[in-house]
Amino acid sequence: MRIVDIIDKKKQGKELSKEEINYFISSLTDKSMPDYQASAWLMAVWFQGMSEEETANLTEAIINSGETIHFGALSKKIVDKHSTGGVGDKVTITLIPLLAAAGIPIAKLSGKGLGHTGGTIDKLESIPGFSTTLTLDDMHKQVEEIGVAIGQQTQNLTPADGMLYALRDVTATIDSMPLIASSVVSKKIASGADNIILDVKYGSGAFMKTPEDAEKLAQLMVNIGKILNKSITAVVTSMEEPLGRAVGNALEIIESMEFLKGNIVTGDIAELTYDFGVIALLQTGRFIDKDTARDYLKELIHSGKAIEKFKELIEAQGGDSSVINDYSKLPQANHKIEVKAETDGYVENIDAYKVAYGCKLLGAGREKKTDSIDYSVGVYLNKKTGEKVTSGDILYTIYANDGEKAEECKKYCNKAYKFTTGQPASNKQIYAIIK
Amino acid sequence: MRIVDIIDKKKQGKELSKEEINYFISSLTDKSMPDYQASAWLMAVWFQGMSEEETANLTEAIINSGETIHFGALSKKIVDKHSTGGVGDKVTITLIPLLAAAGIPIAKLSGKGLGHTGGTIDKLESIPGFSTTLTLDDMHKQVEEIGVAIGQQTQNLTPADGMLYALRDVTATIDSMPLIASSVVSKKIASGADNIILDVKYGSGAFMKTPEDAEKLAQLMVNIGKILNKSITAVVTSMEEPLGRAVGNALEIIESMEFLKGNIVTGDIAELTYDFGVIALLQTGRFIDKDTARDYLKELIHSGKAIEKFKELIEAQGGDSSVINDYSKLPQANHKIEVKAETDGYVENIDAYKVAYGCKLLGAGREKKTDSIDYSVGVYLNKKTGEKVTSGDILYTIYANDGEKAEECKKYCNKAYKFTTGQPASNKQIYAIIK
Repeated sequence: MRIVDIIDKKKQGKELSKEEINYFISSLTDKSMPDYQASAWLMAVWFQGMSEEETANLTEAIINSGETIHFGALSKKIVDKHSTGGVGDKVTITLIPLLAAAGIPIAKLSGKGLGHTGGTIDKLESIPGFSTTLTLDDMHKQVEEIGVAIGQQTQNLTPADGMLYALRDVTATIDSMPLIASSVVSKKIASGADNIILDVKYGSGAFMKTPEDAEKLAQLMVNIGKILNKSITAVVTSMEEPLGRAVGNALEIIESMEFLKGNIVTGDIAELTYDFGVIALLQTGRFIDKDTARDYLKELIHSGKAIEKFKELIEAQGGDSSVINDYSKLPQANHKIEVKAETDGYVENIDAYKVAYGCKLLGAGREKKTDSIDYSVGVYLNKKTGEKVTSGDILYTIYANDGEKAEECKKYCNKAYKFTTGQPASNKQIYAIIK
Repeated sequence: MRIVDIIDKKKQGKELSKEEINYFISSLTDKSMPDYQASAWLMAVWFQGMSEEETANLTEAIINSGETIHFGALSKKIVDKHSTGGVGDKVTITLIPLLAAAGIPIAKLSGKGLGHTGGTIDKLESIPGFSTTLTLDDMHKQVEEIGVAIGQQTQNLTPADGMLYALRDVTATIDSMPLIASSVVSKKIASGADNIILDVKYGSGAFMKTPEDAEKLAQLMVNIGKILNKSITAVVTSMEEPLGRAVGNALEIIESMEFLKGNIVTGDIAELTYDFGVIALLQTGRFIDKDTARDYLKELIHSGKAIEKFKELIEAQGGDSSVINDYSKLPQANHKIEVKAETDGYVENIDAYKVAYGCKLLGAGREKKTDSIDYSVGVYLNKKTGEKVTSGDILYTIYANDGEKAEECKKYCNKAYKFTTGQPASNKQIYAIIK
């Protein structure tokens, strides 16, 4: 077998065999194939696509390129929830204690995020003392004791994915359905879960710009799961505006705790957390009726069991759980700038990408893995889509440690807000559920 | 400007600006761009193609990536003839002395060929003593004295072309019209000629398998010439069977000398040499009528002026010109194997690629620049397409230095010959002339 023939075959739009895909990925991993052949192949895939069978074979080859995690008998029950990435998306943080309180074991591995704002790991680490550097044994023990653990992907999982992603990033081949699907699904399966819930975002703040494209990607990932014998449910959700009101690491932890305490009962965060929770309860066979499952989850919030589970999680991972009752113990920004509305009307939309870019300017995210993150900074959206605005109302609040950066951030946030005179429909969160 | 944006733009099928193409080629040449970006771009070009304007800009950028040769005032008159490569193609060797005898200055630079059989330089160097390692000054002086010189491309011409070709070879992106066209035309223009005749081959022994594709490539190269202000005439010719009867370096020199002596007056070699000669006489304004030009060239053969010019060329470049009257002074193979026909009929076709492959097995070509060539070996086609064959007739003759290799070569040559019972039309040599 020669790599150049595999490139040529894909270039001509033919289907690659399992053996050819395995040879390609093993040649990538053992570095016997030069990068310039890998990148030519990636571009050929961008143009010609891959069948579901090919994409599943690629996914499996990427899984087999490194170690895989097994939680033993626990694996069959463990649920993993993954989002393709959204601005202000703290639904993993709201969902995990809720599901753990419902008795569903959660052992979540997450990578340190690269992006305009931090990832789940970064948000949790804004809680003083909270550590995610757990060994696999630590995690196993913690799940058995309190039903939940969140660790960093320190193991050598799916190295081929990292290599392919690095090349895609610099060769304009990120936006390819089979490459995105195999990357996401391979990491989830290698991390040891049998029940996977994928939140596939569309909109200005997401990879997929239209709901139709996001649905295609979701369907592809669910079908790969079927071929590889894993239960995957994919939910196509809107990222037209930021999720919730808080964007920025510590700010998002506060909003998550407000939800878990029962202080946020409507809106996108509540809607999505309950929807995903219901899917997990049905997927694992705990409930068969949606409404009963939803009522059960609401009761876990109202009874205080959900926030109690979050407290247990914080303490188990070395964090200071007193933040739950005293938000001032979280990292605090020096400047708090309230930006006010200059006209009357309604918010028509808030561009998620622009808000995220503004937060990046404040220092809320990182570009390189070695960059440090400022946990305290971010933006709080006092007004969201569909809400009435009167001149002088606080539109949004910037939390910053640098006045100049705050001014830059303000420019982007001002551009993000669109207003209208008639009341617009609020954004529908869930576009489709695919399983 | 960022390379990833240039790749993305081409991926999306948009036209690259002159500045973007220049930046891409200069980043390739100064090695600031990694090869994996270059190969992704090449694959994007394979899929999306390039406009004529883009291809001309690419050609110019490749020319400017290295040194360029100028023959001063002579340049305006100098003719360069280039073939995209064919089996048994010795028309450069027959044409050059003929045009020089007609008073048209020729300063031809050629690269050492990679392929199943040798290139023009290799064929000429099979003449004992013949050297092509001339300096530019040597060439200039020799052209002024005897009107003709053939040198090796030792100068640092079009380095970007070499880099791109090396990548194309291992990423399945050889067969792209704009990449082939810019590669051929850039080398010719950098070599200093203003009048260029291109022989674009189609058929089993050529890059382009159909005459239609070869015509598209020819048209593209002529149009690039117009944009870059050079006179290019492209001739689309058949490579369905080997050109002439001899395939192999010294054997082809003999056949060339036979033509220049006037001993070969019909057939593909005579036809093509006269056709190209007429094009050159018209292109440089020496004649305006085709028939008069052709008669003039025939007279140069019959009067002995053409072979006399070849003698001058051999002597000027240090070769032993007594080979003209004593072919045994050329390298001789130990084995001469006459393969006889086993049935009666007509030759319907001789697959050029298979004959070339057989010759490669004998040692007639090279794969790497450092491989040595056996000048003496090759195949002589005693019967060509359209000729009658009676059982027992000599079909072809193998010249070899190794009995086992000769047997291997025979297998391929036997597969190359196709027979028929009714007399077939002989292969038409010229499909189209584009200027």
